[in-house]
Amino acid sequence: MDSCLVTFLPDNKKVRVSSGTDILNAGMAAGVYINSSCGGEGICGRCKVIVKGGRVESEPTGRITQEETKAGFVLACHSTIHSDVEVEIPPSSRLTKQEILTDEAKVHRLKGVFSEAGEVEERIELEEREVFSHSPLATKLFLTLPPPTLDDNISDLERLYREIRKKRDIPILQTGLANVKKMGRIFRQSNWEVTVLLGKRNGTTEIVSIEPGDSSGRNFGLAFDIGTTTIVGELIDLNTKKTLSTKAAYNKQASYGEDVITRMIYAGKEGGLEKLHHLVVDTLNELIMAAASEVEISLNEITCVMCAGNMTMAHLLLRVDPTYLRREPYVPIANFMPVIRAAEVGIKINPRGLLECIAGVSSYVGADIVAGVLACGMDEEEALSMLIDMGTNGEIVLGNKDWLVSCSSSAGPAFEGSGVVGGVRAMEGAVQKVEITPGDFEVKYSTIRDGKAIGICGSGYIDCMAELSKAGVIDRSGKIREGTGSPRIRETEEGLEFVLVHGDETATGEDIIITQADITNIIRSKGAIYTAAKVLTNKMGFELEDIERIYLAGGFGNYLNIDKSVSIGLLPDIERDKFRFIGNSSLAGAKFALLSYDAISKTRATAKKMTYIELSVEPSFMNEYTGALFIPHTDIDRFPSVKLQD
Amino acid sequence: MDSCLVTFLPDNKKVRVSSGTDILNAGMAAGVYINSSCGGEGICGRCKVIVKGGRVESEPTGRITQEETKAGFVLACHSTIHSDVEVEIPPSSRLTKQEILTDEAKVHRLKGVFSEAGEVEERIELEEREVFSHSPLATKLFLTLPPPTLDDNISDLERLYREIRKKRDIPILQTGLANVKKMGRIFRQSNWEVTVLLGKRNGTTEIVSIEPGDSSGRNFGLAFDIGTTTIVGELIDLNTKKTLSTKAAYNKQASYGEDVITRMIYAGKEGGLEKLHHLVVDTLNELIMAAASEVEISLNEITCVMCAGNMTMAHLLLRVDPTYLRREPYVPIANFMPVIRAAEVGIKINPRGLLECIAGVSSYVGADIVAGVLACGMDEEEALSMLIDMGTNGEIVLGNKDWLVSCSSSAGPAFEGSGVVGGVRAMEGAVQKVEITPGDFEVKYSTIRDGKAIGICGSGYIDCMAELSKAGVIDRSGKIREGTGSPRIRETEEGLEFVLVHGDETATGEDIIITQADITNIIRSKGAIYTAAKVLTNKMGFELEDIERIYLAGGFGNYLNIDKSVSIGLLPDIERDKFRFIGNSSLAGAKFALLSYDAISKTRATAKKMTYIELSVEPSFMNEYTGALFIPHTDIDRFPSVKLQD
Repeated sequence: MDSCLVTFLPDNKKVRVSSGTDILNAGMAAGVYINSSCGGEGICGRCKVIVKGGRVESEPTGRITQEETKAGFVLACHSTIHSDVEVEIPPSSRLTKQEILTDEAKVHRLKGVFSEAGEVEERIELEEREVFSHSPLATKLFLTLPPPTLDDNISDLERLYREIRKKRDIPILQTGLANVKKMGRIFRQSNWEVTVLLGKRNGTTEIVSIEPGDSSGRNFGLAFDIGTTTIVGELIDLNTKKTLSTKAAYNKQASYGEDVITRMIYAGKEGGLEKLHHLVVDTLNELIMAAASEVEISLNEITCVMCAGNMTMAHLLLRVDPTYLRREPYVPIANFMPVIRAAEVGIKINPRGLLECIAGVSSYVGADIVAGVLACGMDEEEALSMLIDMGTNGEIVLGNKDWLVSCSSSAGPAFEGSGVVGGVRAMEGAVQKVEITPGDFEVKYSTIRDGKAIGICGSGYIDCMAELSKAGVIDRSGKIREGTGSPRIRETEEGLEFVLVHGDETATGEDIIITQADITNIIRSKGAIYTAAKVLTNKMGFELEDIERIYLAGGFGNYLNIDKSVSIGLLPDIERDKFRFIGNSSLAGAKFALLSYDAISKTRATAKKMTYIELSVEPSFMNEYTGALFIPHTDIDRFPSVKLQD
Repeated sequence: MDSCLVTFLPDNKKVRVSSGTDILNAGMAAGVYINSSCGGEGICGRCKVIVKGGRVESEPTGRITQEETKAGFVLACHSTIHSDVEVEIPPSSRLTKQEILTDEAKVHRLKGVFSEAGEVEERIELEEREVFSHSPLATKLFLTLPPPTLDDNISDLERLYREIRKKRDIPILQTGLANVKKMGRIFRQSNWEVTVLLGKRNGTTEIVSIEPGDSSGRNFGLAFDIGTTTIVGELIDLNTKKTLSTKAAYNKQASYGEDVITRMIYAGKEGGLEKLHHLVVDTLNELIMAAASEVEISLNEITCVMCAGNMTMAHLLLRVDPTYLRREPYVPIANFMPVIRAAEVGIKINPRGLLECIAGVSSYVGADIVAGVLACGMDEEEALSMLIDMGTNGEIVLGNKDWLVSCSSSAGPAFEGSGVVGGVRAMEGAVQKVEITPGDFEVKYSTIRDGKAIGICGSGYIDCMAELSKAGVIDRSGKIREGTGSPRIRETEEGLEFVLVHGDETATGEDIIITQADITNIIRSKGAIYTAAKVLTNKMGFELEDIERIYLAGGFGNYLNIDKSVSIGLLPDIERDKFRFIGNSSLAGAKFALLSYDAISKTRATAKKMTYIELSVEPSFMNEYTGALFIPHTDIDRFPSVKLQD
């Protein structure tokens, strides 16, 4: 039997797959999201499912206990389907544990986690850097061509070139056969009044398309930050430079691994690259569709897309094999990707529209960081500056106008609201500020846009950690203290947890909690980032105190409490006015690059100029990291302001 | 009934077409060639066929007599099929009247007319003009890349660019996503030894493809002269510049009209453009296949194609609408066509290989003429020169290094062996030289490669005309004289004809004849060319005697008798050493352009520099043309050397 019907419980979702398909893949095909953070390697054991009926063959694994085996548990990634089967996904294996919600709330919640397209993300608007000329990746130009006469009977194409060159100084102007084929008819039917779309493509200017009449007033583009966990897109009016809509969603690849390493491993499997490629493209397409329909723009009027993502994301987006990124000597296939037609990779905008990926530096410092440098402008400053981008990979750049070095650390997706029980993206209803009274552990919180609480976003977690520590709910090592007598602290099968918001106040009706595992997770994240900043700075012969400006980037929302970040040891304890929170700088940089050829040129220069430093080979690294797994640090003298409060 | 079975007699060829298809198109689909010189307009009346059975609807026409109607005659182009039908094609409507041949001879003969790929064409080799650097449209470069290390871990693409730029100075180097996708694997599997194919594309250099190992020794290209009647291709080793094979065939579009005007009309009909496009592409593909298999080259090793054709042919080749070429103010869609991938139009070479069309001047002076100027070099000379290209359109260029003017005349395909009863291309067995003894009209002739006579090529017709006139077979107006008593002159239903070669000496067993209609045809051709040369020269303020060099081009073969050409009034009566016969200069120019970027740059400059002059609006034109319809001319004083002989 070649085709098997798979029924996923409890949602009763059905899908037909060919015999031999593994359950993890079948789940994806059915739109059922099964946890998996190792990329289907059989290592993480997070994709346990229960086979209720039918024939499934499973590879041996140490991740399933004897009891679980008796109960029908298998690893979805290592079990193949050989007949019609029924598979139950237990709550622990769903991508979010808050699946069982009231119906309305469930829809709301799911929209956030796996929205067809995410809601508007709160984000910091960087002031537009006026240094860049307004010269978008694709520009529309309305032309009234003089009709040919016997005295002026040059060809249609020469006539078009002549008119364009009257308005623009373009050394190499070219076009493809598709436009030549339809040009004659369009010119004559539109009475020689046409709009040309000019695109900047690999150092030349291309006539991308020709439309009858004047459509120059409607020209739109998208800037994307393609993160390992979260993807955010801005729909921009290329004429006015205004952002019309911002949409965010989790990267659909997330089922295939939490971080870039597991994605790369998965991509190396048969069909894996294609799958991850299609998932990221699907995510982008859904965001595009949502943004465009919100502001009533036709996909045809979207003429270009600028993407900033880490090197793995860039490779997967373009369906380029990322295998060599993770193998010594860690080389990308290309860090300057060619500008292509978006349709070449299945992105649904104007069929002739362009897609450009901002250049990256190396396997582990990608375009998102280059875009961040562009956005904050540290590459133009005399002073020593640092950029800290707290994504799933925490990347750090140090330098000034003369030099730039960078490194990468595995921070994990906690600050993006993923991999933590109550986590959500920075969206309406996300808890972003928290205060906890010592003693009675009373909680005051505020949410983004004052929405009913749905979960905790990155900045909320930072606040929580600082407040939990200050109030004495957790100790310096992050352990939740027993015996406080507070009803907010309760014990479950999985250990202690702290109830931040009670169910009667939440959108879902469920308590919003912070578990011991969440806290450990967040401590690892903050420790990884601090360690990277410290080791990189020392490696270059500086102390953290020598840095005159620290730009903080990440998708936390429009709020980050510096004091609290310092108090948990996420950020170094230096003068507070040296910090500047710039939000999603990868997205901001992508917008600059979309809107200006100067900016995109600058990203190329930055990508060439920046040096990547592999921190894990530094002798001091492991010691530093171990010390950073405390609140704020084992060496409290490094955090004098925190010490003072104690 | 939607699908109808059509049986063509006498060959009993069958084809299924959808109801409503006209018989002319059904014939093409069946591989049956029906005469038609008006492009299916219902004007020429040459496509008469006899409906033997089945339902056919015919539009009224004055081209079919009442008697013919009774006998079942209809015009193929104006009759649609509405059931299974049987159609007989009478001999007069076949594209050649010499269809009924012995079996072997028939194959031989048909090979010449509608060969799957023509035989080697005799042609003049122009000396290679050493002024052009050796820089083909596509070049192969073998590279040994240093494998990446931790100290040198730039991306694969940068590594490739770095190595290419060590060997070549290339300002704008680019490549597409397809190569980026497969690059990583190729580099590693081939141990970092690869061959890149570099193509010159619209002012930039493109990495066209990447192959493992060293294939740089095998890189081939094709130069094509795409004529209205005849297409000739040369397969060239791009490394050694040597021509490996030359193939010629009639342009398969010929069934859809004899000249460019009828082709353009046909292209304007529903589906017409696609059909003509596919026919010329088919012709090219068959020639490519024949040439490549002859010298055992794989199509994959053919990396580029350079085409020279008139403006209509260039448009049809690229499937660009030629409609506006023939409508006032006569503008091409493009005379500088973009360089494309040959596969984009269905040309079967390396799937990523390039196709370039040499630039043309105007609707009626195309790339073939620009290529001709390149080949003869008249654009570099101080002296006043003229280029006369005797194709189906006779084009003439006058000028020197400072200026160039051109014009076009409708010569018809007679000099290419088409549209005349005994005509063949300049191929083995074609009668190319003729002497006729006055009095007994004894004929001495020689054929190309001394093959058994199969027909008369262009140069043979010129000799014939001169000799028929000298011997008194025809009078000054071209009429065959009655009452000479010679058995070579005979009367048929269609009028008088002259038997040049008796059937016992021919390859086909059939007499090779020249009819009165043929003679009229040739007089019109020679008159059109002389008139154009004369009027253009006078228009520019010169006399024909002022011209210091006349380059004669055309697909006559490797022989043209200047004296005889003058004696029939085809060429002006000036010093004989001013003439230089250069053969197929369009093909020679295409070869230069294929092999050198300098040459292709020169064609662009020439196309821009040359002015087109419309002769038909000159007041003197019609008088001049009427005078030229005599042998040699009504004004014998213009031909003093001929007058002297009289």
